[in-house]
Amino acid sequence: MSDIAHLGPIELLTPEAERSLAFFVDVMGMEIEGREGGSVYLRGWGDYQRYSLKLTESEDSGMAACGLRATSLDALRRRVAAVEGTGLGEGWGDGGRGRGPTYRFRDPDGHRFELYYEVERYEPPEHLRPSLKNQPQRYTGRGAAVKRLDHLNVLAADVRACRVFAVEALDYRLYERIELDDGSEAGAWLSATIAAHELIYTRDAHRANGRLHHVAFWVDTREECLRAADLFLDNDIHIEAAPSKHAIAQGFFLYAIEPGGNRIEVTTGGRFVFDPDEPTVVWTEAERAKGQAWGVKTVESFHTYGTPPVAGTSDDQRP
Amino acid sequence: MSDIAHLGPIELLTPEAERSLAFFVDVMGMEIEGREGGSVYLRGWGDYQRYSLKLTESEDSGMAACGLRATSLDALRRRVAAVEGTGLGEGWGDGGRGRGPTYRFRDPDGHRFELYYEVERYEPPEHLRPSLKNQPQRYTGRGAAVKRLDHLNVLAADVRACRVFAVEALDYRLYERIELDDGSEAGAWLSATIAAHELIYTRDAHRANGRLHHVAFWVDTREECLRAADLFLDNDIHIEAAPSKHAIAQGFFLYAIEPGGNRIEVTTGGRFVFDPDEPTVVWTEAERAKGQAWGVKTVESFHTYGTPPVAGTSDDQRP
Amino acid sequence: MSDIAHLGPIELLTPEAERSLAFFVDVMGMEIEGREGGSVYLRGWGDYQRYSLKLTESEDSGMAACGLRATSLDALRRRVAAVEGTGLGEGWGDGGRGRGPTYRFRDPDGHRFELYYEVERYEPPEHLRPSLKNQPQRYTGRGAAVKRLDHLNVLAADVRACRVFAVEALDYRLYERIELDDGSEAGAWLSATIAAHELIYTRDAHRANGRLHHVAFWVDTREECLRAADLFLDNDIHIEAAPSKHAIAQGFFLYAIEPGGNRIEVTTGGRFVFDPDEPTVVWTEAERAKGQAWGVKTVESFHTYGTPPVAGTSDDQRP
Amino acid sequence: MSDIAHLGPIELLTPEAERSLAFFVDVMGMEIEGREGGSVYLRGWGDYQRYSLKLTESEDSGMAACGLRATSLDALRRRVAAVEGTGLGEGWGDGGRGRGPTYRFRDPDGHRFELYYEVERYEPPEHLRPSLKNQPQRYTGRGAAVKRLDHLNVLAADVRACRVFAVEALDYRLYERIELDDGSEAGAWLSATIAAHELIYTRDAHRANGRLHHVAFWVDTREECLRAADLFLDNDIHIEAAPSKHAIAQGFFLYAIEPGGNRIEVTTGGRFVFDPDEPTVVWTEAERAKGQAWGVKTVESFHTYGTPPVAGTSDDQRP
Repeated sequence: MSDIAHLGPIELLTPEAERSLAFFVDVMGMEIEGREGGSVYLRGWGDYQRYSLKLTESEDSGMAACGLRATSLDALRRRVAAVEGTGLGEGWGDGGRGRGPTYRFRDPDGHRFELYYEVERYEPPEHLRPSLKNQPQRYTGRGAAVKRLDHLNVLAADVRACRVFAVEALDYRLYERIELDDGSEAGAWLSATIAAHELIYTRDAHRANGRLHHVAFWVDTREECLRAADLFLDNDIHIEAAPSKHAIAQGFFLYAIEPGGNRIEVTTGGRFVFDPDEPTVVWTEAERAKGQAWGVKTVESFHTYGTPPVAGTSDDQRP
Repeated sequence: MSDIAHLGPIELLTPEAERSLAFFVDVMGMEIEGREGGSVYLRGWGDYQRYSLKLTESEDSGMAACGLRATSLDALRRRVAAVEGTGLGEGWGDGGRGRGPTYRFRDPDGHRFELYYEVERYEPPEHLRPSLKNQPQRYTGRGAAVKRLDHLNVLAADVRACRVFAVEALDYRLYERIELDDGSEAGAWLSATIAAHELIYTRDAHRANGRLHHVAFWVDTREECLRAADLFLDNDIHIEAAPSKHAIAQGFFLYAIEPGGNRIEVTTGGRFVFDPDEPTVVWTEAERAKGQAWGVKTVESFHTYGTPPVAGTSDDQRP
Repeated sequence: MSDIAHLGPIELLTPEAERSLAFFVDVMGMEIEGREGGSVYLRGWGDYQRYSLKLTESEDSGMAACGLRATSLDALRRRVAAVEGTGLGEGWGDGGRGRGPTYRFRDPDGHRFELYYEVERYEPPEHLRPSLKNQPQRYTGRGAAVKRLDHLNVLAADVRACRVFAVEALDYRLYERIELDDGSEAGAWLSATIAAHELIYTRDAHRANGRLHHVAFWVDTREECLRAADLFLDNDIHIEAAPSKHAIAQGFFLYAIEPGGNRIEVTTGGRFVFDPDEPTVVWTEAERAKGQAWGVKTVESFHTYGTPPVAGTSDDQRP
Repeated sequence: MSDIAHLGPIELLTPEAERSLAFFVDVMGMEIEGREGGSVYLRGWGDYQRYSLKLTESEDSGMAACGLRATSLDALRRRVAAVEGTGLGEGWGDGGRGRGPTYRFRDPDGHRFELYYEVERYEPPEHLRPSLKNQPQRYTGRGAAVKRLDHLNVLAADVRACRVFAVEALDYRLYERIELDDGSEAGAWLSATIAAHELIYTRDAHRANGRLHHVAFWVDTREECLRAADLFLDNDIHIEAAPSKHAIAQGFFLYAIEPGGNRIEVTTGGRFVFDPDEPTVVWTEAERAKGQAWGVKTVESFHTYGTPPVAGTSDDQRP
């Protein structure tokens, strides 16, 4: 129903390029699809595009850009027109590796996005050819063996402005949100499909702009989240939040900090929203204070840390 | 992107009303939402509508009708117009319990469907109120504790005619299909969302019309399919096909025959289709002969048995 | 190799008899095997004895006694002789429902135990007869559907004295223990089989005596622990510690407080110890400070709360 | 209670040394502990010994020998005396890599076993050091990532003679067995611990001697069996029997044929036998005809194929 098919690829910045790459390949189990300049293109075994993650060496951590694939050329034109209407558009550019033209813009908080429609489907080399023809790539099982890019959570100084923009200009649906006692918004969970969340805005504790909270990769089962935790443990990856179940969206999570400093989630589950008129679920401050679904208190850094870290801020320490 | 939000409720017929009801309540773990005449209205704990299954006492087994909820009033009008254009429409009627007006029609094989848009959302009574507000009902965990209606597989003498109708008149997308060596079609897997299948047509071995292959209910994990098999075993429910993984759509399955004779599936998993231009996967006769994903040979009755059984046919025995 | 086959039945005391019973039957999914006086006898579907839990109405919570089944009559005599040698024996008594004579004694911390050998095997009534003959009872799947009593964790003012007693008088093996920087012992994990723990002593923060930390019931999969958490949530059972993995013994856990105040665990996993000469693993204070296996910080009440609560102690609040 | 702690290491023969090694390392996820002559020593991440599998290049497939570790020196002496009493002993030899002296003998069907007590515990190199000190090796997660050797199933022309020998000379307990209508024995499930099976004898359909049915490796969860099936599929390993649940012992299984021709199982689950007087479960011919726990018919080759194959026998084809 939305003009957006899905988000991605995402370009992630890392000051520890080599160690970050080792993490995504050996621990997350992604494949290197190619390299260009200071970037490496990575994919999960279930990604239908050539890549879903572009990892780029940089002085800082954080997200450089997030692609948004439209469902058709018409849908793309509609979204570009809507974004242009907000005055946040930046114009057309070359989509880069495996993509047609992209229309670049920034959301109200300054995160860069790229709208596009044309894209190349992945063609696996011989050693990665799958046995089942409805699967883009062989399942190698290496590391956490994430299947595909799932969702993005960015921080915003003004959550409300961003979620209104996402709904009106980007055609996302708002499934759940947090409204604090003072009426301000602390988080918004948006989706372009029946999946419970694809694009999430949560409040930046430092009122900084354009920062990343986390990038989430999908696995098919909760057992794979538990298994990923064992792998993180034995690969000296810092687990920020051990596997458990979110109250919001009911997704199963595992959060870790990759060597470059960015927060990464391994996720599965979550509810499907089949009702085209699903009312938005609004969580209160008191409800959020209960912690996650099974009462796990959210670790403090989860509320404060983002990338790139805010310079000179003592409470934005990397967990 | 489709005009259809989802299918359901489904009306199922049973000559063993009491035993079928006990199966859906005690073994499948559904709740009785209400009773009217010879029908009982049932729901999974994750169904947002009041009910997803209407179980009706009858001389024969089989499916009486399948609802199709449109995404909006406009979408409903478009679909009704498209169906009317095929000459298969039967006209508007009362939607019955918890639904607005429905437009009835038959697919080219004679199965009855009901298009509608207006619907009442479920309001749980006190003892079924959930702890998490993004969940329609409390999780009781009784029996297999199916979450919601997932998909429908009907048999058809002419699969191709039905799938063309589903794509053109109903706005479904065709994700996978089987084409035999003689060029005929043996199966079509269609969906209105990113889920790998919602409406399936497979060839009726007896070239009969309007028959049901199976109705599938969703659980969130493969472990729940395995657990359901243990429950079926200890409740004397005939397991036709033990839990395993399909090659087509990659769903995880468990098939059983409910006391009224209808085939029921407990399902989870399956791939998501995020590419708006996903090419249809076409399986050949040789590929299908390999069995399911892990080499399990499909049990013979799966290819021949449907409900209602074909009178006087020796090879349409209930498994 | 040990003279002890396993522990249990355990007699648990509750000041909320009716609500505790509802918890064990409806939420934990145990069966009522019988009632006598103010006690109800309960069993998991995999317990081979008639019952593994005796729930007794009482003014206080806590554990009244824990049975210890010897592997043979000779083994029983050896253990009785060894206990008598410590001066802690109390003499023979009637084993009660379904058991032969029991020899009663108290461990150095005052917990009551009962050694016995003779026992009646469970014979299921018709409606609980299993399909597989190597299973004592039908799998009903009700609630968390715990399979059997697994292990016992009692608190002790002097952990070292208790674990020495358990090894020398009771023939348990010591697999893991905690030694604090001051040389004192904070915990001991003992077993009579290859299972990683069956009897656990941890330090009583209040230096009280004879108190219970928790009784653990087994499920076969981690998914069943996660499912149990959903059931606890929707049945208003306080979850003290959400499902995660212990570092010690590597068991998977879910801790909750039953209505009578006793801490209950739903557990699975853990390592098997096949080496007859397995060296005891000694955990340091620093290692314990890291939390559980995946870095989950242990909730404070876990270190302080036991049953019965210590009267007049402000920090022994029920979680 | 038994004089035997566990079985293993097992020496497996393969005419396809290189491909078999690739299978055990890349697909099963075992580590190479060392090489000597034409043999490679392999281990699972949870094996406490240096190795549990010795893979030896040979003209034929099959099992060369199976170690049996006694629980103590006294236990070893008792077992050696008992075996000598049967006339099947062959005398003491060098235990080879990481083991003290071994006493070699053959069971009544001619399979070679090696009794021993002294053994070296595994010391991981730096890159395989685990995070949790109660774990012998780091969890790499490579391939199916089997944890340890679990059990052995050998074929025998005379099952009864072998199981009597295992009970009387080797101190195993008989938990389950199959007795056909003609009174002959078709299978015996024996264990030295609470695990439901460690040593299995099933009837050799060809009345050949000394053949192997399968060697089983343990994983902690059923989900890992399902995952292993996906890995086998995408690594062109022939799956003989897809994941499902056995009726006997209730273990969860996945059977495949490794490149050298030997049948390999990935297993988990199964019941624990805590009753020291557990009556042996006897399965009848009719009960076995029902197939596995959930009604899966056992594939024919499972009843006929063993290694080494019987020369010139048309129905002993490799599956």
